[in-house]
Formats: sequence, structure tokens, C-alpha cells
Amino acid sequence: MSGTPKPDSHTETPSFDSVFRGELETLFRWRRDVRHFRRDPLPKGMVEHLLAMADLAPSVGNSQPWRFLQVTTEDSRARVVANFEDCNAQALANQDPDRQDLYASLKLEGLRASPVHLAVFCDEGTEQGHGLGQETMPETRRYSVVMAIHTLWLAARAQGVGVGWVSILNPADVARILNTPPDWTFVAYLCVGWPQDYTEVPELERLGWQARRTQMETVAR
Amino acid sequence: MSGTPKPDSHTETPSFDSVFRGELETLFRWRRDVRHFRRDPLPKGMVEHLLAMADLAPSVGNSQPWRFLQVTTEDSRARVVANFEDCNAQALANQDPDRQDLYASLKLEGLRASPVHLAVFCDEGTEQGHGLGQETMPETRRYSVVMAIHTLWLAARAQGVGVGWVSILNPADVARILNTPPDWTFVAYLCVGWPQDYTEVPELERLGWQARRTQMETVAR
Repeated sequence: MSGTPKPDSHTETPSFDSVFRGELETLFRWRRDVRHFRRDPLPKGMVEHLLAMADLAPSVGNSQPWRFLQVTTEDSRARVVANFEDCNAQALANQDPDRQDLYASLKLEGLRASPVHLAVFCDEGTEQGHGLGQETMPETRRYSVVMAIHTLWLAARAQGVGVGWVSILNPADVARILNTPPDWTFVAYLCVGWPQDYTEVPELERLGWQARRTQMETVAR
Repeated sequence: MSGTPKPDSHTETPSFDSVFRGELETLFRWRRDVRHFRRDPLPKGMVEHLLAMADLAPSVGNSQPWRFLQVTTEDSRARVVANFEDCNAQALANQDPDRQDLYASLKLEGLRASPVHLAVFCDEGTEQGHGLGQETMPETRRYSVVMAIHTLWLAARAQGVGVGWVSILNPADVARILNTPPDWTFVAYLCVGWPQDYTEVPELERLGWQARRTQMETVAR
């Protein structure tokens, strides 16, 4: 068992072996932004588990400024869908003419089918962390929230659960629909549920919108 | 081997078992913001490996807007250190009087010892992704960069390599020091190297600055 992490031991430092690292890379490669969900509910306790994982994310000054709202009422969900449709119609109108048909053919969200909707906010006014590390870069509060979202996303995929991030929304409208405190910044709207299928290739790449580049360049300074 | 991911097979969907999920949770729990580094270099190829992992992160419209600069010259590193010291002196002066001594006692960066410095930027003008998903929330470009950073962070910890995110810097000054293009936004400055030790408890918690909350509340709407 050498090299195996010991999650229950708080006295010994875990080490991660090449098998785990290979699986972690597979997780990174097979995480997807999901837009096609099955309608059946997630198992009891799954959302709570994913939120507990999200809570382990890094945050500036240990501020943990992420706030997750689970959007459960039909009225709120319908108003979010309507807001997406307005924003997406505008985005379609703003496309280059030669890409409008392709844009219109894309399915960019799974709002109707996904059983769980999470609206994610940043509490800009939290006292937790006493402002450490935020003075020159207050945006690091939002960045902390993004790392909580990404943690949740990876934990979900490890359970076979899909996550889709919907950004084609008007932040002020979403805050109004969900009646959030004035010092909360809207960061993301997440659809969560069982995916209809799994794939290694992003849907935007399969459908010819945008391939991934083959290699990242790093510049020296 | 059932339930074991098959990283080399591109035809079969990997599934992740409870052993992997347990190790993933251990990784989340033992990832740390590292400020105490050993000075010895990382193995050849390690930085390239971590950047390749970062490139697997989610990005809005598949835009992959992250740009990593490896800061290698003594002059650039020294100017970044000086910028941190200026910003940190100002932050100290702005602390509540009853927390100034504690703040002054904290070590908030590992800039001098860490062998690798990565300055991370967002290319706001990239054509990749054709603007999809960014119209109402252009900040999702920066958020994509943050997920690349977090991916690198987790991949590093899985290798035993530590990462520390320095945010006590003036973004405009860093851009000037590194002479970056005008449409690049500074997102993060990362110290990367072997940590002096590993711990499950964040340093800010051990030293009495800020404990983590015990439970995240989720609000229904």
C-alpha cells in the first residue's frame, strides 16, 4: 500500500502515486461542459457531497467567499431560462453573418432537463479572511469562487455527474430573479445532473465551432 | 480492473471508483498555498507537464485564454519582489491596529526561494472561441484562466510540488515589469517548487489569522 493516500490519517502526509496521477489526468481530460442531461434526480446527499468538496477550494486569505443557491422553484427556473433565451438571441444577432447558422445550431445549456440548478455568487463583503490578499486585487475574491466551482466540477465528474456552466445570462437580472444581497456578485449558473453521454472531446469542438489548440506556448521573461 | 480508468483508450468511457474518489478528496484536502519552498530545482520537464495539464481546463467557448510567462531573469524577479514589498507594507498599514502585529508576522509569499515563477495572464483579445459565451459576462475569460491555474495547482500537488499564489501585487506594475501586450489582464503570480513541508491545515489557520468555517450553507430559491 506504499504511496497510497490515507484519507483518515491526519498525522501522516499522503503521497500520490503514478496510478492516481494517471487517473487524475483522465479526469481532467474527460471533464466536460455538459448540455445534454437525463431528467432523473441525483441520489440523496449528492449535492451536499459536491458542496462539501467545493468548500475545500483555495481562497484568498481563507475567505471562502462562495455562496451557492440551489434554484428549486419553477418560477425562478423559468425566469432564468427566459433570461438565457433573451441573451442568446442577442448573441446570435451579434455573430458574424457567416457563423450565425452554426451558432444557432448549437445547444448551449441544459437548463430544462438538469435536475439541479446552482447559482453561484461571491460575497464581496464577507469579513472572513479580514481582507488579506485582496487589497490590490479584489477580483481574487471572485477567483476563489471560480476555484470552488472547478473543484465541484471535478468532484462531480469523478461521480459520473455532469456539470454545465451557463454564462449567457445577464448578471443583474439573475441577481434580481434570485433576490440576492447587494454585495453578492453573480459568478456562474450551473446545471448539474446525469449526462446523457460521456465524451473526451468538447461539444464545441465536435460541432465545428472551436477546436482546442494543440500546444500551449510559454513565454520567458 | 473494472472501474479503472483507461487513459490510453479513446474509445471507452472511463469510470472512476471509490478508491480514486477518496484519493481525489485527499488531494483537495492536502493542496495548500505554499510559502516555504526548498531552493532546489524541479525535475526537467515538470513545468511543461504542469502546463500541459493546465491546458485541459474548462474555458468559455473553448477560448483557452490563459497565457503563462515563466519569469526567469534576476532583474524581473527582483522587481516583482520589490512590488510585493511595497504592496504588503501598504496592506500592513491598512490593517486594524489590533491585527497589525499578527499580520506582520505572517509570511505571505515564497518569491525568493521558489525556483519557478509563473505570471499568469488572460488574453482578452483572443479570437479563439469566437467570443461565444462572453458577451454578457466577459469576466468568464478571466475565470477560465483561474480554472487553468487551479488545474495546474492540483496536478502539482499530485506530484508533491507546491504552488503559492501571490496576489499582493499591483497588476499594472507587474504588466509593466514583464512588458506584456496591452490586452492581457494580469490574473495571478505563482511560486512553484518543492515545499519545505506538507500539511493538511492552511498556514493562515495554523497561525491564527483565519480558520475555515465548519460548514457551507446552501440557500434555496
